[in-house]
Amino acid sequence: MSKNVEISVKNIHVDDAFWNHRIENAVENVIPYQWRVLNDQQPGAAPSHAVMNFKIAAGLEKGEFYGYVFQDSDLAKWIEAASLSLIYKQDPQVMQNLEDVIGIIEKAQQPDGYLDTHYILKKPDKKWKEIAHGHELYCAGHMLEAAVAYYTVTGSDRLLKVMEKNVDLIRTIFGDEEGKLPSYPGHEEIELALMKAYRVTGQQKYMDLAEYFVNKRGHEPGFFQEESFIENSTRDKTMQKDYHQAHAPIREQKTAEGHAVRAMYYYTGAADVALENGDESLVEALRVLWKNVTNRRMYITGGVGSQGDGERFTIDYDLPNDTCYTETCAAVGMAMWGLRMLKIEPKSEYADVMERALYNNVLSGISEDGEHYFYVNPLMVKPDVANYRSDHISVETKRVRWFGCACCPPNVIRTLCGLGGYIYTQKEDAVYQHLYVGNEAVLSTSQGEIRLSCTSQMPWQGEASVTYHGPQGGKVFFRIPAYAKGFSICKEGNPVVYREENGYALVEGGLEDGCTYTISFEMEAQFILANPRVTEDCAKAAVLRGPLVYCAEEADNGPWLNDFRACLETPAELEKRDLFGGICGLKVSGSRSSMECWDADTLYLPAAKVCGREKASLHLIPYFLWNNRGEGEMLVWMNTEA
Amino acid sequence: MSKNVEISVKNIHVDDAFWNHRIENAVENVIPYQWRVLNDQQPGAAPSHAVMNFKIAAGLEKGEFYGYVFQDSDLAKWIEAASLSLIYKQDPQVMQNLEDVIGIIEKAQQPDGYLDTHYILKKPDKKWKEIAHGHELYCAGHMLEAAVAYYTVTGSDRLLKVMEKNVDLIRTIFGDEEGKLPSYPGHEEIELALMKAYRVTGQQKYMDLAEYFVNKRGHEPGFFQEESFIENSTRDKTMQKDYHQAHAPIREQKTAEGHAVRAMYYYTGAADVALENGDESLVEALRVLWKNVTNRRMYITGGVGSQGDGERFTIDYDLPNDTCYTETCAAVGMAMWGLRMLKIEPKSEYADVMERALYNNVLSGISEDGEHYFYVNPLMVKPDVANYRSDHISVETKRVRWFGCACCPPNVIRTLCGLGGYIYTQKEDAVYQHLYVGNEAVLSTSQGEIRLSCTSQMPWQGEASVTYHGPQGGKVFFRIPAYAKGFSICKEGNPVVYREENGYALVEGGLEDGCTYTISFEMEAQFILANPRVTEDCAKAAVLRGPLVYCAEEADNGPWLNDFRACLETPAELEKRDLFGGICGLKVSGSRSSMECWDADTLYLPAAKVCGREKASLHLIPYFLWNNRGEGEMLVWMNTEA
Repeated sequence: MSKNVEISVKNIHVDDAFWNHRIENAVENVIPYQWRVLNDQQPGAAPSHAVMNFKIAAGLEKGEFYGYVFQDSDLAKWIEAASLSLIYKQDPQVMQNLEDVIGIIEKAQQPDGYLDTHYILKKPDKKWKEIAHGHELYCAGHMLEAAVAYYTVTGSDRLLKVMEKNVDLIRTIFGDEEGKLPSYPGHEEIELALMKAYRVTGQQKYMDLAEYFVNKRGHEPGFFQEESFIENSTRDKTMQKDYHQAHAPIREQKTAEGHAVRAMYYYTGAADVALENGDESLVEALRVLWKNVTNRRMYITGGVGSQGDGERFTIDYDLPNDTCYTETCAAVGMAMWGLRMLKIEPKSEYADVMERALYNNVLSGISEDGEHYFYVNPLMVKPDVANYRSDHISVETKRVRWFGCACCPPNVIRTLCGLGGYIYTQKEDAVYQHLYVGNEAVLSTSQGEIRLSCTSQMPWQGEASVTYHGPQGGKVFFRIPAYAKGFSICKEGNPVVYREENGYALVEGGLEDGCTYTISFEMEAQFILANPRVTEDCAKAAVLRGPLVYCAEEADNGPWLNDFRACLETPAELEKRDLFGGICGLKVSGSRSSMECWDADTLYLPAAKVCGREKASLHLIPYFLWNNRGEGEMLVWMNTEA
Repeated sequence: MSKNVEISVKNIHVDDAFWNHRIENAVENVIPYQWRVLNDQQPGAAPSHAVMNFKIAAGLEKGEFYGYVFQDSDLAKWIEAASLSLIYKQDPQVMQNLEDVIGIIEKAQQPDGYLDTHYILKKPDKKWKEIAHGHELYCAGHMLEAAVAYYTVTGSDRLLKVMEKNVDLIRTIFGDEEGKLPSYPGHEEIELALMKAYRVTGQQKYMDLAEYFVNKRGHEPGFFQEESFIENSTRDKTMQKDYHQAHAPIREQKTAEGHAVRAMYYYTGAADVALENGDESLVEALRVLWKNVTNRRMYITGGVGSQGDGERFTIDYDLPNDTCYTETCAAVGMAMWGLRMLKIEPKSEYADVMERALYNNVLSGISEDGEHYFYVNPLMVKPDVANYRSDHISVETKRVRWFGCACCPPNVIRTLCGLGGYIYTQKEDAVYQHLYVGNEAVLSTSQGEIRLSCTSQMPWQGEASVTYHGPQGGKVFFRIPAYAKGFSICKEGNPVVYREENGYALVEGGLEDGCTYTISFEMEAQFILANPRVTEDCAKAAVLRGPLVYCAEEADNGPWLNDFRACLETPAELEKRDLFGGICGLKVSGSRSSMECWDADTLYLPAAKVCGREKASLHLIPYFLWNNRGEGEMLVWMNTEA
């Protein structure tokens, strides 16, 4: 494969009508809000203790460890997000907080490089003895990602030095050599972080360790001999090898199994390794897994993980809408993996999925005010049922301010602040624009610097303009989304000819310095059907417009949303709505039951005695906005007529 | 209310084309089979130890108690069933087994009358200290029912004497008097048993205790102060007061709550009490609960209990088809309660529900060979999903030979052997025939003996003949089922005029000695719709014919049953099927997806690109017969066109 050129997230400055207020909100409000939460200074939020754990480990405070074994990672993700936020605002307070907390982390690190506060404070004798469930490598991975982000944005290698020392320690612990653990992380994450460190430092040791973990996974003994693993595996079917993607070496895995976030992070890290070492057998394994996920196990929102118990993949076509998990973090992982696949081979099908995840299951994880979150992102909610039934226990019917297990909120924020990193990839001198998100980009090619200035009407309208500055005949490939109808490119207002390659359009002759290229396509609201093998979606349709999945809410439509049946013959109509600063809603025509014969105490009636159906319409809003107007029913897959 | 006349089950001998082989199988095979199971002599069945527990308590064997706290009740239900089986066959071996086991029980009983083997053997210091969960009164109730059945059929009061002594002990333990426990059973059952004992012995003490338990329930302190109750209630939301129907006195309960079997047994016992004491406030409470159950919380199969966790009722209209519990025992309870309501006030709506439960959710609990059972009776099964997902954990996809918790199998058998008891009720001299089940009956009225000889084509055809012998003008009311079309009565072949009363037909002038009355009605297959408030049944239909709910099985239709959509305009066609000795199947017309565009790796498609639907039909069999031909998909509520 032709060589990937890494684009620094620092060089892509998002400036976009749709995303700006989300990023601004993240930068202005959420970064400080989450800082208060992590410091236990936010009333109403679940206690975090994440900073305090480091302070105690650093000897700066007295106390005991509190939280999950992976509590450190919440802080790590915040450091990453806060570092990325500096791209948009050099907030002195945030910079000071970062400096201060890195100082604490430096002090918390033990002389040998060890850093995990859970084991330092609570189980010092169990270090590296609970690989299956201990999350030491997971936490190290997130802190390494944080260190890379901090270094990339600020140029300071303070945290990177801490983490280099930590990685050096890990290298002495894991490996096939005598006296080392021939094992790999219980929760993948460090693989992709090591690859980030490799790219910014060029140091081979990072890549070697990532490669080791990726390839070793699924081999015995791994962590299968551990007491904690054996103990758990007998009790709980979710604690099996496949829960950890460790049931087979990756090249023998044909289906995505187990904990969805772990799987996504693993595939992402493996793709990073394949991208650098060019191992075609690894790429092929990833293609097989990608197909399994996106063709049989992915929700239309880009969400993955069909079951709360084990937060996991289940079986092909098992996609229940009300009892799914579809964790926000897993959708972030889906987007990350898609981005890596695009770096390996720029095909628009990867971008279609990445975009779907970002605009739907990722964005639904955060409220419009930025301070309320979803961990689980179902496609159908009846609050009374969800709050009663024990098989809906994972589902929250109202966004919450924080979680005891708080992986998702900072994950969304780092994704928002790092959104620039998802827009382009580059293969040698060819630049691929995957997302029509307004931005200013500076890219390097062997022919010289390219500057792209993009404005966009997405996701409401299929139009974006890109002004190109750079070498004559610049190779910038514009994505032709699967949903685009009548895709065209104009140069300074005049249509130009383009050729299509793997779902990307390249203007004949390349781009001309100083010219503005306008990309236009229609985005019709589309009724989408699911494969008849998907029990839960049979006789139902979802509505997509562009990258956005739509949903019906009780706030617009009253209760009993499932009674509505959409008429698929009548196209959904665009409705301008004043909600949330102005959005494109949709109106779907169809019918509802006449309720005359259905009083509250009539449970069953012969069809012949039912008084029929009345014309009705359903007002839809984008899925990511659901539950910003209080608790109520929500529905993505609606019943259909005929 | 006019006085109920109790009809002895011994006086109704079922002789019916549909039921005979089921009862014969129960008598010939299942009673001996279950005896072997209870004696741990049946290979392949889960261990029971129920008889051994009594032997150990009797000092006849050494060993330890094994099983659930309610293990004794499995044996009690077998004794009841075996006693009832003697109506049909005076099997010397069964009679001997009964004598022997009663001898063991006599020996196991302690001098003060105490009998529960779990507490005798395992927790002697906890007798009457764990009322909430200990099941002592539940086991006593079942043994008392067994004693009444044994006495009724054989005339021997050996077991009844044991149980009278046991009840006398219970009377010294429970009550409002100083030093007694002002409490009531954790699991209701003894109330209805006490009322049976009251009826056969005429002893007021039985009824007094039943009345006490029924009315005391829901009052504090009950068992709410018990350690075991408090402990559990903090851990588990199912272990709350409402789980035990103890959240309020019965007259203040407006909805059916908690564990479905407990609720059914409670309402049955309460109805028995109301029937005898004529307390209109109690009758009214039961009417309110009946309406709540049958109008908002009952499956079309007569099943109740929408959730496996807590085996319980949930909320109005929450009727999921794949994750329901609908325990066989709860359906038995539904039938028992219906029968009691008929005794209070003969209205055919009670009989409609009783019949629905018996022919569907009760009968589905036992295989055609009589030796394989369902505990949980879902209305939709996808085996791969049910076997994988943890929220389907209660669902068995194959009938099993026995259960560790084995309440259901003997419950079905005692119901089959006691089926005669469900056919008629009597108010003073008026006899009501609720079920068209062939039988020979001997009834007493103030005018003299009535003999009824009934033959029936039900449930396959709406025809039954009743030959009447007895006083001139006999008042026998024939039920007009809700599903009957063109109900008519002929006397010796000639139509006669009848008047209708609460859904029952009384021939003008009453019945004539020696005459045969033929009841005829059409039973069309009906598409049934559910209230739009029932999310899971929206845009779906079930098919009923007479009392039978129908279902589609993979064995007849291939997989992906949910893809089928029924055309409700085309009536379902009757199909004679050779299965199971000859049944009426049904064929429903409709459509299936053309699968050309839906290969296994196409998950979603725009509706406009879907290649359409093909005409298809679905072959249905009666629900109670499902899973007699191996594992496969099963579906009651099918999607519909338009």
